[in-house]
Amino acid sequence: MGLPVPLSGVVPPLCTPLTPSGEVDTRSLGSLVEHVLAAGAHAVFVLGSSGETAYLDDARRRTALRAAVDAVAGRVPVLAGVIDMTTARVLDHARAAAATGADALVATAPFYTATHPAEVRDHFRRIRSGAGLPLVAYDIPPSVPTRLDAGILLPLAEDGTLAGLKDSSGDSGGLRRLLVALRRRGLDDSFAVLTGSELAVDGALLAGAHGVVPGLGNVDPAGYVRLYEHARAGRWAEAAAEQDRLAVLFALAGTGDLTGMSGSASALGGFKAALHLLGVIDCPATAAPQRPLPGAAVDAVRHHLAEAGLL
Amino acid sequence: MGLPVPLSGVVPPLCTPLTPSGEVDTRSLGSLVEHVLAAGAHAVFVLGSSGETAYLDDARRRTALRAAVDAVAGRVPVLAGVIDMTTARVLDHARAAAATGADALVATAPFYTATHPAEVRDHFRRIRSGAGLPLVAYDIPPSVPTRLDAGILLPLAEDGTLAGLKDSSGDSGGLRRLLVALRRRGLDDSFAVLTGSELAVDGALLAGAHGVVPGLGNVDPAGYVRLYEHARAGRWAEAAAEQDRLAVLFALAGTGDLTGMSGSASALGGFKAALHLLGVIDCPATAAPQRPLPGAAVDAVRHHLAEAGLL
Amino acid sequence: MGLPVPLSGVVPPLCTPLTPSGEVDTRSLGSLVEHVLAAGAHAVFVLGSSGETAYLDDARRRTALRAAVDAVAGRVPVLAGVIDMTTARVLDHARAAAATGADALVATAPFYTATHPAEVRDHFRRIRSGAGLPLVAYDIPPSVPTRLDAGILLPLAEDGTLAGLKDSSGDSGGLRRLLVALRRRGLDDSFAVLTGSELAVDGALLAGAHGVVPGLGNVDPAGYVRLYEHARAGRWAEAAAEQDRLAVLFALAGTGDLTGMSGSASALGGFKAALHLLGVIDCPATAAPQRPLPGAAVDAVRHHLAEAGLL
Amino acid sequence: MGLPVPLSGVVPPLCTPLTPSGEVDTRSLGSLVEHVLAAGAHAVFVLGSSGETAYLDDARRRTALRAAVDAVAGRVPVLAGVIDMTTARVLDHARAAAATGADALVATAPFYTATHPAEVRDHFRRIRSGAGLPLVAYDIPPSVPTRLDAGILLPLAEDGTLAGLKDSSGDSGGLRRLLVALRRRGLDDSFAVLTGSELAVDGALLAGAHGVVPGLGNVDPAGYVRLYEHARAGRWAEAAAEQDRLAVLFALAGTGDLTGMSGSASALGGFKAALHLLGVIDCPATAAPQRPLPGAAVDAVRHHLAEAGLL
Repeated sequence: MGLPVPLSGVVPPLCTPLTPSGEVDTRSLGSLVEHVLAAGAHAVFVLGSSGETAYLDDARRRTALRAAVDAVAGRVPVLAGVIDMTTARVLDHARAAAATGADALVATAPFYTATHPAEVRDHFRRIRSGAGLPLVAYDIPPSVPTRLDAGILLPLAEDGTLAGLKDSSGDSGGLRRLLVALRRRGLDDSFAVLTGSELAVDGALLAGAHGVVPGLGNVDPAGYVRLYEHARAGRWAEAAAEQDRLAVLFALAGTGDLTGMSGSASALGGFKAALHLLGVIDCPATAAPQRPLPGAAVDAVRHHLAEAGLL
Repeated sequence: MGLPVPLSGVVPPLCTPLTPSGEVDTRSLGSLVEHVLAAGAHAVFVLGSSGETAYLDDARRRTALRAAVDAVAGRVPVLAGVIDMTTARVLDHARAAAATGADALVATAPFYTATHPAEVRDHFRRIRSGAGLPLVAYDIPPSVPTRLDAGILLPLAEDGTLAGLKDSSGDSGGLRRLLVALRRRGLDDSFAVLTGSELAVDGALLAGAHGVVPGLGNVDPAGYVRLYEHARAGRWAEAAAEQDRLAVLFALAGTGDLTGMSGSASALGGFKAALHLLGVIDCPATAAPQRPLPGAAVDAVRHHLAEAGLL
Repeated sequence: MGLPVPLSGVVPPLCTPLTPSGEVDTRSLGSLVEHVLAAGAHAVFVLGSSGETAYLDDARRRTALRAAVDAVAGRVPVLAGVIDMTTARVLDHARAAAATGADALVATAPFYTATHPAEVRDHFRRIRSGAGLPLVAYDIPPSVPTRLDAGILLPLAEDGTLAGLKDSSGDSGGLRRLLVALRRRGLDDSFAVLTGSELAVDGALLAGAHGVVPGLGNVDPAGYVRLYEHARAGRWAEAAAEQDRLAVLFALAGTGDLTGMSGSASALGGFKAALHLLGVIDCPATAAPQRPLPGAAVDAVRHHLAEAGLL
Repeated sequence: MGLPVPLSGVVPPLCTPLTPSGEVDTRSLGSLVEHVLAAGAHAVFVLGSSGETAYLDDARRRTALRAAVDAVAGRVPVLAGVIDMTTARVLDHARAAAATGADALVATAPFYTATHPAEVRDHFRRIRSGAGLPLVAYDIPPSVPTRLDAGILLPLAEDGTLAGLKDSSGDSGGLRRLLVALRRRGLDDSFAVLTGSELAVDGALLAGAHGVVPGLGNVDPAGYVRLYEHARAGRWAEAAAEQDRLAVLFALAGTGDLTGMSGSASALGGFKAALHLLGVIDCPATAAPQRPLPGAAVDAVRHHLAEAGLL
């Protein structure tokens, strides 16, 4: 269906439901797509960090993307993560995603080996021209230390290499500098800035961001859509109140005991436990080698959902 | 004059003007105090990072604080930075600041050696009880890697050790989690959250922060006061527009060529060059061993000031 | 041919020669294999960091490994890097490497997402049991922040999951703690510790390490074999002198101007330029998006080779 | 007594014994001086990281240095740490140390604010000329992120600003590059390289380092002196065996439970508990806010001492 210019609104980074044996549960993924589209999501992002992309082999990545494209069936754009270490590997994913029907791609800077800004720009240009789909850059410093600052992004916004940025840096000052620089160059109508800072969406929209990619939007997409609509209508106090409510609900991402499991296992395990409790997906398992969420943590997730009125 | 509970508003972290030979220029510091008070600043913060505290020996620190206390003359509260590596050293500064007439203290977690959260809490409790002044914690990860998260801060907010937080982490998600946690515990009326993210003040205020400590507020305090007043009145679009204007002006902090000088020398050199061009201070020198801002960079500062209508 | 227990000696991490269009140059790779085997290398490591593994798509990885296995023809063991983000992806590479004839595998901890030690141990156990080949863990903090310390490694050494460690951490204290812990548990005859710190090999061997995986060993394998033989014979002064000579030669990894290219592009470009000047490989190109080494840097490489008597 | 050129041998970084109320225990510090001098230490380093300098206020720093100078009484050189954030503050300590009778100073690069290499060089030049004592640079990245690499150090070695380096980076490759660069410039007879990597001293001496500054040398100075003498005499196998023994003993630095205290509290608490058990110092307390070592950890320290034959 192509990508709106600029892309805007609520774009949930879909979890990838798994079966108990670790296969992609395409039925549950379809159910999750309905869950977020029924709430009014403006696009979906498959194979991002919330989708456990790093944990999925190529076959499972393709299965997940195919299932999402089929389930969405053209109702909204489907963005596909093409996360890998460097250009040639990303290009392989990019071509597969294009063949599977993705509407746009989301790629990080190279990681594993450190890269110079000139090399990062070349990386994005090769992906854009090699795959023939709109390309969104993904800034996520805990995973990819090379930052995507205005010096890297502006030339790529100007020459059309990039259609936008997913900013998961949490760096609100850098976001503002980028937004004012885009506006001064007349690029804010063609380059979409989407924040991944799901607890500061009201502030990002107030600053001029076009939309949000909230992991918590798997669980409560309606909340993020309300927040976005309040912001679009200039109802900032209501937007902030909705964001406050979602910030309280975010506690379900922190129920795991980090002395025995990773933060990722706790957060994604919390999202999936919530989706399971809500009846959206069949099995809350996360991909190996992440530890499963223990029972007490699942009880805490249930409590947070109930407190938020979602159960 | 004591500290309002909670402290709120615009609290410029005052630059420390120096003479060409590196002494504290107390006359210029008094002029800077008038500059920010005339604009409506609600308090001043002496001996913070913008004040080059790390670069000042004990005698210069005392001179600067004394000059600021004298110039303010009780019109607004004076917060004094007591930045040092660990508890005993901070206590020395804290007692000196109390004797000099500071109304409150601002201290970081220990640095140079890494510290456990239990030790950080003990650190703040010893400073609070040893100095007898309201204490604000300072979270500034580029300088002090030990983060001050809600797990450390909430017990210290509850038992009255801390009067607030200056958050220069740039972590908008962590800020939101703290703000909702304070509110759920009924502590948002007694514990002040002040953001140091000077380019995202509108979003921080929308999220419930009580005020801002903007380095750029040395140069354009009236802009930050307008931004704060817009926010208090719920004029969020106007607040965002003012923040956008200040984000453009912030370019004056980035005129130095970082292949030959530090980011600190460029940023503080930019602020001081601007204050010198505005006629507020007599000499734009920063403390050794920071490199001085070259002439071309000073020209760029002048350009940014003129573009902002300040010259 | 199987892996000696413990693996020991000089194990060059082979560069992956490329054609000007970026394909794997299998003829040159065969020539490089002869270059290091003629010098007495005790094994080869294909698809490590020096092999630009991060930059090679799956097809090129398989081509390179196949060419190395064919060229080695059973004369020494072939270790294959199976570098990828997490378990399922690594297992795909591991099975392909086993099918291609590798004698052992080299894998890092998961990266891109942070992992808990319990998850890291599970990761290695799944790879070991899934691929059926001896497994060497790879500690390389600049690429994979999760450190492989004694607490992670010792259980995996004791239960036979790991055949050894390639330690590219540069942390000589941690290496010593691991070596004495292995010896106290009687594991130093079954678990091989190979240092990747190519400028401190004499000290690592003196501390009890079993061998070395030197990137510079692509260029001067004979030097590292001499160093290893001196150490085995207890000629420590001669070992140190040889290491000093190699430390001077290492300057060829630092000829690129880092204001315009990455450190990786400079180092790997330097190794490849040297191999090209020595007539071992046909083309010095590194994989995109790394910048090519400029002419002046190639001249510097030539100078360093000549000074070392290699040209 | 002046500083030998180059300084060499075993230079224990003395712990600072404290009374139960946190005052410097000068009698115990004198006893510690006798403990290390009786073992053959070639110099002592007061007010380093092992001396808890970061935790001592100015008065306690002066008391400790005075006590050490008095106890040493000219038998060996006394190096004094002058650890502080930036130049002016370091100069204050430097002048006080010179007045107290120190023979040389040890200073880090600036910390708290990041600094450019040109500013770091200026920093050391100002300290050297301002205090009139030989100056040793201190590279300790966990505390001071700005690294002191060859590009910073060589000009300062050539112009006589620096008399040497204490290298606590643990970076054995960087150490080797520096050592070969010094030798090629004929500076290895005037610039002393002292390693602080106390578990890899044999390798550092084999690489050409002049000496060692081992925290564990407070507890077992005789072991380090034997190690050094073996190395000087070319008995490398014996040096390695001694280093192995010391690496086992180093377990006494890791007995604290890091879920409740900092690594510093555990390591320094372990050293001090050992010195107390050995009868060298009267009280094992570390400075606030470090947690005290619990009884079970002290028992473990006793066990390690007994196993090493020191009790």
